Amino acid sequence: MPNPSQSYEALLTELREISLLSSTASVLSWDQQVLLPPKGAQYRGDQLAYIAKLSHERLTSPRLLEALSAVEGSELVRSPDSDAAVDAREMRRAVDRALKLPSSLVQELARTSILAQQAWVVSRKASDYGSFAKWIDQVYALKRQEAECVGYKAHPYDALLDTYEPGDTQANVTAVFEALKGPLVDLIQRVASSPNKGKGSLLVGNFPRAGQESVGRLAAAAIGFDFEAGRLDVSPHPFCSTLGPLDTRITSRYNETHFVQSFYGTLHETGHALYEQGLPHDRFGTPCGSYVSMGIHESQSRMWENIVGRSRAFWTHFAPHLKAAFPATSSLSEDDLFRAVNHVEPSFIRVEADELTYNLHVMLRFELEKALLTGELSSADLPAAWNAKMKAYLGITPPKDALGVLQDVHWSACLVGYFPTYTLGNLYAAQFFEKARADLGDLDGAFARGQFRPLLDWLRTHIHSKGQRLTAPNLVTQVTGKPLSAAPFLAYVSKKASEVYVI
Amino acid sequence: MPNPSQSYEALLTELREISLLSSTASVLSWDQQVLLPPKGAQYRGDQLAYIAKLSHERLTSPRLLEALSAVEGSELVRSPDSDAAVDAREMRRAVDRALKLPSSLVQELARTSILAQQAWVVSRKASDYGSFAKWIDQVYALKRQEAECVGYKAHPYDALLDTYEPGDTQANVTAVFEALKGPLVDLIQRVASSPNKGKGSLLVGNFPRAGQESVGRLAAAAIGFDFEAGRLDVSPHPFCSTLGPLDTRITSRYNETHFVQSFYGTLHETGHALYEQGLPHDRFGTPCGSYVSMGIHESQSRMWENIVGRSRAFWTHFAPHLKAAFPATSSLSEDDLFRAVNHVEPSFIRVEADELTYNLHVMLRFELEKALLTGELSSADLPAAWNAKMKAYLGITPPKDALGVLQDVHWSACLVGYFPTYTLGNLYAAQFFEKARADLGDLDGAFARGQFRPLLDWLRTHIHSKGQRLTAPNLVTQVTGKPLSAAPFLAYVSKKASEVYVI
Repeated sequence: MPNPSQSYEALLTELREISLLSSTASVLSWDQQVLLPPKGAQYRGDQLAYIAKLSHERLTSPRLLEALSAVEGSELVRSPDSDAAVDAREMRRAVDRALKLPSSLVQELARTSILAQQAWVVSRKASDYGSFAKWIDQVYALKRQEAECVGYKAHPYDALLDTYEPGDTQANVTAVFEALKGPLVDLIQRVASSPNKGKGSLLVGNFPRAGQESVGRLAAAAIGFDFEAGRLDVSPHPFCSTLGPLDTRITSRYNETHFVQSFYGTLHETGHALYEQGLPHDRFGTPCGSYVSMGIHESQSRMWENIVGRSRAFWTHFAPHLKAAFPATSSLSEDDLFRAVNHVEPSFIRVEADELTYNLHVMLRFELEKALLTGELSSADLPAAWNAKMKAYLGITPPKDALGVLQDVHWSACLVGYFPTYTLGNLYAAQFFEKARADLGDLDGAFARGQFRPLLDWLRTHIHSKGQRLTAPNLVTQVTGKPLSAAPFLAYVSKKASEVYVI
Repeated sequence: MPNPSQSYEALLTELREISLLSSTASVLSWDQQVLLPPKGAQYRGDQLAYIAKLSHERLTSPRLLEALSAVEGSELVRSPDSDAAVDAREMRRAVDRALKLPSSLVQELARTSILAQQAWVVSRKASDYGSFAKWIDQVYALKRQEAECVGYKAHPYDALLDTYEPGDTQANVTAVFEALKGPLVDLIQRVASSPNKGKGSLLVGNFPRAGQESVGRLAAAAIGFDFEAGRLDVSPHPFCSTLGPLDTRITSRYNETHFVQSFYGTLHETGHALYEQGLPHDRFGTPCGSYVSMGIHESQSRMWENIVGRSRAFWTHFAPHLKAAFPATSSLSEDDLFRAVNHVEPSFIRVEADELTYNLHVMLRFELEKALLTGELSSADLPAAWNAKMKAYLGITPPKDALGVLQDVHWSACLVGYFPTYTLGNLYAAQFFEKARADLGDLDGAFARGQFRPLLDWLRTHIHSKGQRLTAPNLVTQVTGKPLSAAPFLAYVSKKASEVYVI
């Protein structure tokens, strides 16, 4: 019989080998999204499927299960904060889910995801929801099955949310979102009737790609991205991916007319990357070295993109770099820049939405996917429900479904339960930042001098270095002394709106 | 009991899965050489080692051996040209070698290769052979062990050569090289005493990288590289790598002073890639879909680089593209270009050598590694032996070992038996091309009109599409009607030398 520490070592060996496989899959996938020549796509799919199969076999192998059970039954897990307890808890969650899902359902989800995404591309292009509706039915039928297999206490949505936000519940998210919704709708309406709205076009013009890339690189480095342990490249859809403990890569895309889109895309992905670069490298591939949840990940990207990157202080520091790269901007004042990057205006497309309206796009999707999952809403009634909520929350109605219900890939990719993590990220970011400012004092002064390290160090200490030791709800409570609430975010956006707009 | 075709299907399934792993390793390795951030190097090594371990386990698994034995004992292999016979023959060769090498020796070779390469980098930089000599002893001791484990009939070198040139022998290569050496030394001496030598500097000047890259891309596309199934990128050491059946990538590097180096580097790698892109994609990862030998691979790169790319007809077609990209070359005549790219001059570094002297660099290494392997030559006497052969073959003596015995990475990387494949490539190329011209008629006229497809189609039909059906010695005999000889190459270089030089 192996002793407990031998069992734990055996468990870690299994995890390290699984992460050699999953990080290899990340290399294959990164290359696919950034570089792969078109004819190589099919075989790359075969390579990814094969590595995923090997990885899944290892995750459910008798050797891993034996080591895991031995650790769970040992004194190593007596303290729930110990490395062994954290690793065992999270591995049990992952293994249980893997064992509960029959492989026929996993394969059906994979197959449907590919076919539905292909159909979605066609339907969106033609703005033809009718031809796509049947995929909504199929995807949600499968996701209902998934929820039933995994099991849940209160609501089937909990079983799906658990993939992205372990330890959180539909009820909890709904309560926080409901507290946010009314005040946010109200604030957006006040901005809409402000006498000085409409400064959004100051950073629209001619911004050649090379200049945008070098400005983006400067900004990423300024806030702490380690280019010796990462890269910045170009891809059609910006993303951040970790290919190894010291290899975190971000991508951006460049629209030569709109500076703001690309620049904040880069800052957003840099925020994700700073989290990944701050995780404990020596625990790579184990829960103690992994991110907490998608919402916590998003809190890091949103904090650097919005709370830091769209602050007036950031532009005090960064305006000279912008003006050096694009002399046409040299007449813009700090105030001009601050207003231009904080322009608020209801619009149809979530990924192009501003810091305020974005969250209503997310809440709309959260509400619709809960209703689709329980069967309260039918696929036939989905577009009308979408449009009614757009009208109620943002006061606008999409002229066609391509600008409405067909805009996002998520549902066709069988991602249900993912959307709320975007707004959770905004809320976590505001609540963490409020505490960081209380701890560190005058952060605006530091930013204005180009000093972003104090904030990054604070995040490293309180969030990054912790890995998955605490679930997201517990982490925010431990770090800030309070459970997640909408109040810090509402305070932050209200203050900023009153600085940018006469409201 | 499975029937023979079931066994063959089982063998192919094993090969397909092994190639999913080995092509995944190619993706990891390509990225390592082209993009990997420095701090990511160590973990990338772990990923590669793990995938190699999985791949090796599959190659020697009971399942594969059982299927292979069943195919070998069946009527499927009665005709030696059948797919099953070819696949079984080559898999037996690979499996036998894998089973004959004890894993302790494999690990020791891997370990020594890493340490010796690190030592080589340091020793070459300091031009200090003394500190490197012990690695020559260690590497050759291991390679002797490898040869003994693998076994051989006539000469231990045969066991090593077999990795790169299956079915060829030391005796055969020596005979062909000996026939080449005398006439080649003589021709180089005649060029050296020619009254019109020294036109090599016409394409030295200012060639900005972007222009070189676009000219290289044009040339690669002109001779048939499919950019939908491949890429051209930048790396410190140019190479060609296949990451999947429709994903063949080449790299180049750009020296902004020397146009010729980068341009012919790109054409060389394109030649390799055209072979890879011409292999039967549906047999990817099986012997019927694989290249014959390193020498045959090199024959394709050398043919496109030298016989095609350094022909006068090529420049008739391509000069306008060069002049459009680099207006400073617009005064050069076709004759100037032809002479500039065919400049011959003995020099110290193999990879920078011209088409004639290159082969003497190779023969020198071939002779020395045979002597080191048998123990006729000691590591202590190696630099003197190197320098004596340089003097005898090329009439020059390296002023320091960094320009002599320390210049190549191969021996430190435990590659012994690899060097001769470079010159074999030149000889195969000339012999194949002679036959292609006999079959196709006026190839120069076609090249001058930018028509490279007839030659490529001929290569696809006679060489690329065949995979590993024939060994290199058998392939050249079947395609050209004669065994490999030095005569076509000598005829080709003599004719060209007499066009470029008054000799």
